[in-house]
Amino acid sequence: MTQQEMLQALQDLIGADKVRTDTDALITFGRDWTKIHEPKPSAIVFPRSTQEVQALVKFANQHQLALVPSGGRTGLSAGAVATQGEIVVAFDYMNKLLEFNPVDRSVTVEAGMITEQLQQIAEEKGLFYPVDFASAGSSQIGGNISTNAGGIKVIRYGMTRDWVTGLRVVTGQGDILELNNRGLLKNNTGYDLRHLFIGAEGTLGLITEATIQLARAPKDLQVLVLGVVGMAEVMQVLHTFQTSLDLTAFEFFSHNALEKVVEHQGLNAPFDTQAPYYALIEFETTQEEQLEEAMRLFEACVEQGWVVDGAMSQSEQQAQNLWRLREDISETISQYTPYKNDISVRVSKVPQFLAEVDQVVSEHYPDFEIVWFGHIGDGNLHLNILKPENLAKEEFFSRCHQVSQWVFAIVSRYQGSVSAEHGVGLIKKDYLHHTRTPEEIAYMKAIKRAFDPHNVLNPGKIFDL
Amino acid sequence: MTQQEMLQALQDLIGADKVRTDTDALITFGRDWTKIHEPKPSAIVFPRSTQEVQALVKFANQHQLALVPSGGRTGLSAGAVATQGEIVVAFDYMNKLLEFNPVDRSVTVEAGMITEQLQQIAEEKGLFYPVDFASAGSSQIGGNISTNAGGIKVIRYGMTRDWVTGLRVVTGQGDILELNNRGLLKNNTGYDLRHLFIGAEGTLGLITEATIQLARAPKDLQVLVLGVVGMAEVMQVLHTFQTSLDLTAFEFFSHNALEKVVEHQGLNAPFDTQAPYYALIEFETTQEEQLEEAMRLFEACVEQGWVVDGAMSQSEQQAQNLWRLREDISETISQYTPYKNDISVRVSKVPQFLAEVDQVVSEHYPDFEIVWFGHIGDGNLHLNILKPENLAKEEFFSRCHQVSQWVFAIVSRYQGSVSAEHGVGLIKKDYLHHTRTPEEIAYMKAIKRAFDPHNVLNPGKIFDL
Repeated sequence: MTQQEMLQALQDLIGADKVRTDTDALITFGRDWTKIHEPKPSAIVFPRSTQEVQALVKFANQHQLALVPSGGRTGLSAGAVATQGEIVVAFDYMNKLLEFNPVDRSVTVEAGMITEQLQQIAEEKGLFYPVDFASAGSSQIGGNISTNAGGIKVIRYGMTRDWVTGLRVVTGQGDILELNNRGLLKNNTGYDLRHLFIGAEGTLGLITEATIQLARAPKDLQVLVLGVVGMAEVMQVLHTFQTSLDLTAFEFFSHNALEKVVEHQGLNAPFDTQAPYYALIEFETTQEEQLEEAMRLFEACVEQGWVVDGAMSQSEQQAQNLWRLREDISETISQYTPYKNDISVRVSKVPQFLAEVDQVVSEHYPDFEIVWFGHIGDGNLHLNILKPENLAKEEFFSRCHQVSQWVFAIVSRYQGSVSAEHGVGLIKKDYLHHTRTPEEIAYMKAIKRAFDPHNVLNPGKIFDL
Repeated sequence: MTQQEMLQALQDLIGADKVRTDTDALITFGRDWTKIHEPKPSAIVFPRSTQEVQALVKFANQHQLALVPSGGRTGLSAGAVATQGEIVVAFDYMNKLLEFNPVDRSVTVEAGMITEQLQQIAEEKGLFYPVDFASAGSSQIGGNISTNAGGIKVIRYGMTRDWVTGLRVVTGQGDILELNNRGLLKNNTGYDLRHLFIGAEGTLGLITEATIQLARAPKDLQVLVLGVVGMAEVMQVLHTFQTSLDLTAFEFFSHNALEKVVEHQGLNAPFDTQAPYYALIEFETTQEEQLEEAMRLFEACVEQGWVVDGAMSQSEQQAQNLWRLREDISETISQYTPYKNDISVRVSKVPQFLAEVDQVVSEHYPDFEIVWFGHIGDGNLHLNILKPENLAKEEFFSRCHQVSQWVFAIVSRYQGSVSAEHGVGLIKKDYLHHTRTPEEIAYMKAIKRAFDPHNVLNPGKIFDL
């Protein structure tokens, strides 16, 4: 089948105006937020229904073509990057709200809906979609589910996985499956295939619809930013606050992250005192006592010598501004071509783990600037290495890869994860063995073959068959 | 291999005193709470470690023997029943606490630990294991996980699945897998095999250890029992209370259930007024206002004509007594040889669904007594049909099976589940197609073959290969 015949066939399947091959589309839809691989898709297709997705998958099986699912393209592991002539399946035209049910407090939406739109729908209904992160304005639900997105509220609300009660998928064999019947709360009838598709990065099937549970909206969120003297002390602060308040977020970032955000985003520092690290704590204040308790805990942390200064939000606007100090870091440092690691261990192991990683990093990157931030309340740290201006990209990434090996060896020893929330994609697959055993990887491949025997869905992502 | 050779080999593997073939053991460990099938295991083995379990699985593979995992034997779908000469693997000697971590708020335990013991360990640590049900005193954690046990707190805390953060399993191939490294909160490195093993009823692997997340203990639980005029009104009451209180339980039961429990357990009725149905509502009262709000909602329900009377617990003892009215039903009616259905639909569909099921049941069982109870706040109903004294067991079950077909046809139309929390086992496998499609079942079988190619683990449960 020639390229021309393939394009004609795709146009026949889903309509001429839903197949694009212009350079602009190939570049835009062929990659995600990682800018490491050169995008080289052969076409971008925009199905409008589950049936069209099914037709595309069957076509791919017939002609041994590869499909790459594409959501909002905000991925950080090159899970949706097309580098070898694949057909990119973009869900931009499948973004409808299909059902809202106030009794079940649930919505069913198409996979292409933007995360922020789902958050807004929930808000309009007096409810709350609690999965939130910096890319919520462009990421799509289908992509969130395929990578089991985490973000800034995991400590209270869990990952995307915890809010998906039903899925409609097209498997690699081209079967349409309705998993858990649009959100049964209880259904113990054999294997839970829904959870298998969540976080599978589009390698088992393409998600076309999802039923999402919504939560009660939290009331009167307070934000507290504290200057902390060291990483181990950040963990002490976490433990102190967690013992008597139900936290909705506990984030941390290093001083150079704060400096850069303040400068580039035109924000104010939370207070004058400088500290090596900062903790951002968010909690609900349904009662006056919770506010008093937070002040008491803050003072206790100061007395212990862990905390040097702090600022509490006095209004919703102030709370938002404090949040921006943390949320704008990723965008701010993107101009420095950062090399990102997204690692996690059990919360109890964080202090020791951090000390070891910190030592390796400062030993081996004496000339690189390191920016730390992350969801430390979940044991999840983002280690960002900034490229020096005068160093070529290739040389920089190559040196970073080298140090990653040492970092991942520590992760491995602490039984941690080499990808806490970004997924594996192309970027982490060489490191997968640090977190999953050869036996586990072999079982994953067997499952892949059961759902996608011709390897047409996102081939080469997570692992090579 | 003769039976004698097999027994000798088993004794060599795990010790002579850990292999039993006496009639008492064969009967006791060969079945669960369902008393339908005749137990016929060939031996009962009691491994003491994951390595011994692995040795048993490898032995079974070598000689094409079948293994049935056995926990507390409180199952209600014959998932752990051995009817065809299988070797029963009982986890009674693997019941140790392996680790408690106060920072992670987690425990790692062996699969044979009794549920109630886990609850007590949590309580001693000032924490809470929130999965609870009538058989907690004898069911084991491994069994809970293998059936994804639900129970009376699902409306607030979810199913067993939601509390399992790590698993150690021996697959059907005999591999030991450490899934999610004893409880990483964030770990997006490929397919989530942990969730695949939860609810798999021991058909993919044998669970030997589990890491369990614990919760903050709830404070000052209040229990309210209301007399309600009809099932549709029970749902109105649910909706009314759920809108402004965070409920920890919402249960219901029919008047004849109450009558039987009061009589057999020597309890007091909650109030004099008789009602066709009762709702049991539990909620936390961290503030005085929540109690006032509950009273206001109660009065609103009375004004609407939904509720005829009510009783609120005034002490912990009274709360426990009110709970017994609901919790003791299962044990009380067990002497009537009940035929049990455990069905669910989405909560919003319950009123219509109930009306249809009720009509079919009363049409076709005019001479049978029906006892309704269940976790109606999760859309989960237990329909119990009591055997008339003068009817033979076989004839009774055969007629019940017939009516089940009609009930399940309604479940199917409402996209519900034929097994909300009891699992499939032997009893529900003929009805599996009402909830799962042929394609889904085919994928489940493919997964089964990947993990257990010689079909040595719990063969014939969930489906036949």
